[in-house]
Amino acid sequence: MENKFLDTLKTCQRVTGHKKQTIKEVMTIFNELGDEVPDFYGNGEVINNFEEIIATELGTDGSVFYPSGTMAQQIALRIWCDRNELLKVAYHPLSHLEIYEQDGLKVLHNIETILLGEKNRLFTIEDLKKLDQVSVVLFELPQREIGGQLPEWNDLVGMIKYCKERGFKTHLDGARLFECLPYYDKTAKEVVDLFDSAYISFYKGFGGITGAILAGSNDFLTESKIWKRRHGGDLYQLFPYIVSAQKKFELRKDRMKDYYQNAVKYAKMLNTIKGFKTIPEIPVSNMFHLYIDGEMLEITSQLVTTMEETNLGLIPSLRQNESGNFCEISIGDMFNEIGEKHIQKAIEVLKELRK
Amino acid sequence: MENKFLDTLKTCQRVTGHKKQTIKEVMTIFNELGDEVPDFYGNGEVINNFEEIIATELGTDGSVFYPSGTMAQQIALRIWCDRNELLKVAYHPLSHLEIYEQDGLKVLHNIETILLGEKNRLFTIEDLKKLDQVSVVLFELPQREIGGQLPEWNDLVGMIKYCKERGFKTHLDGARLFECLPYYDKTAKEVVDLFDSAYISFYKGFGGITGAILAGSNDFLTESKIWKRRHGGDLYQLFPYIVSAQKKFELRKDRMKDYYQNAVKYAKMLNTIKGFKTIPEIPVSNMFHLYIDGEMLEITSQLVTTMEETNLGLIPSLRQNESGNFCEISIGDMFNEIGEKHIQKAIEVLKELRK
Repeated sequence: MENKFLDTLKTCQRVTGHKKQTIKEVMTIFNELGDEVPDFYGNGEVINNFEEIIATELGTDGSVFYPSGTMAQQIALRIWCDRNELLKVAYHPLSHLEIYEQDGLKVLHNIETILLGEKNRLFTIEDLKKLDQVSVVLFELPQREIGGQLPEWNDLVGMIKYCKERGFKTHLDGARLFECLPYYDKTAKEVVDLFDSAYISFYKGFGGITGAILAGSNDFLTESKIWKRRHGGDLYQLFPYIVSAQKKFELRKDRMKDYYQNAVKYAKMLNTIKGFKTIPEIPVSNMFHLYIDGEMLEITSQLVTTMEETNLGLIPSLRQNESGNFCEISIGDMFNEIGEKHIQKAIEVLKELRK
Repeated sequence: MENKFLDTLKTCQRVTGHKKQTIKEVMTIFNELGDEVPDFYGNGEVINNFEEIIATELGTDGSVFYPSGTMAQQIALRIWCDRNELLKVAYHPLSHLEIYEQDGLKVLHNIETILLGEKNRLFTIEDLKKLDQVSVVLFELPQREIGGQLPEWNDLVGMIKYCKERGFKTHLDGARLFECLPYYDKTAKEVVDLFDSAYISFYKGFGGITGAILAGSNDFLTESKIWKRRHGGDLYQLFPYIVSAQKKFELRKDRMKDYYQNAVKYAKMLNTIKGFKTIPEIPVSNMFHLYIDGEMLEITSQLVTTMEETNLGLIPSLRQNESGNFCEISIGDMFNEIGEKHIQKAIEVLKELRK
């Protein structure tokens, strides 16, 4: 049934995400480039220029391009731990570092991790107050694994202030930073200003090929480059990632408000279907989680029927966790491309099937 | 003067290496690709297909594509150390891991390194016999930092046999493995068969964008993927590197004999110039080192004059080490493209200047 779902999805337009591009289409972004050596072990016009653009956007001394956020974040945390001579970090129990990285932080860097608060909610200043000494606290904005929730701005500022008082450095896991700026109604600089270091990703909301940026002070970044080489991330050439990141950043950074507003609209539509519940109920970024009551087989069959009748894929996948059947929804270009009315029709079909 | 050298070089055809390509030219290799998702966190047709091609070529169970050799080799050594419950590795004093990786192996993996033999020569079975217990010995073929020297085949086989008797695993740093096959007159499989694991690179002799392969048994590779994720090397997409690696591999793997024979010719030409000396005197791969007697400024001036008169760049750079002024020469497509006669003329000009 999962195969039937995926096979049918392949024939449909997806409401979520951006339009899929073939490799050939992706590669056309390189057509404008000149004849200069693009990059060479972290130097060269293509890489340095992009690092400068992002540093300016984030208001930091500089920034360094990394092949992955996994690498960039472990390194950021290690630097703060080394400076504080205490290999201890605090973060959310569902932080990317805790659940997706095969414990690289613990095994490669020997860093102890303290889980802040509980899995199914954001951590709060009360959770921070229970902490013994740590070197650095990692904040993930938005908190992906609970549907992209965000602390209210004042609460965030309060938590950062508290960390400063305690002498904790703060690092921003901003994999989806730009995606949450519209809700905060802040610039990237205003958010990043709160933190000692920040990471952002270019293949989430932006839709680049791969790659990440680590931003902060010059001394921090210089140190990070030593670790980048140690990790095997100081690649001979990174330009395919950088060029695509830059193009997609320029293309989509001003569309994030649109994605956010469409996520709010889409969640509202989905919540009218019986047994459908989004978390958060009203999204605060371009993403949310969707929980669906009932038996997996029956739900899948209803989704397949909806796709067959409407040619639209409302939901990109369906998984199970301890809270039930769920999926992650991220809104990109496709929502507007298909159009609200068309989407609403598919919603009605599914609604009818679940009456 | 260095700037003058580099500026003049830019206007010349280089005798060494391959023809430089613009980004646009590089990207045309993607034109033939289909519409399928190329790769996705280490899965997908593009990556799995290439890993299979290389595994077949090397005669191993399988192979895994890595963004860098730095990452692949640290991981290989760590696996052997873990299995032997001894974090100790032996390699040449000028191994890439010792001099170019900011001690990643030591700092991230806590592995102690034993330097085998002396900087300016290959290590021998006598050096191995002096070893206390280690988990793994790394062999670099050819040994880049001493001009790409190679142990004779029987000596290599003898050393491997000795390692087996002592219970040392053996890992091949085959960054330039294909480049040394013509001298050994062996297939890649015959060389790799000697070792427990092997790494090869795709941007040295092959001229790909970036990237490496780690090859070995299935259980070894499965374990290596966990470490790949820990290092932050399990990238969302690797296809730009993979596609270019595959194209260049197919293009150049049968040209290695040509490169090797031209390196022998070129070294012979250079050795006729007063104060010029190649190491090895007769190359055993497509590379060698060239030492030049005299004052750096004077040599540079002679090289610039030769370039101005002939429009050929005989030497790609000039550095100094404790043994004198030297450069690394690697032969690629350009030698044949320019042609022996034309090159010989430039040699005569330089010879005249240094009479």
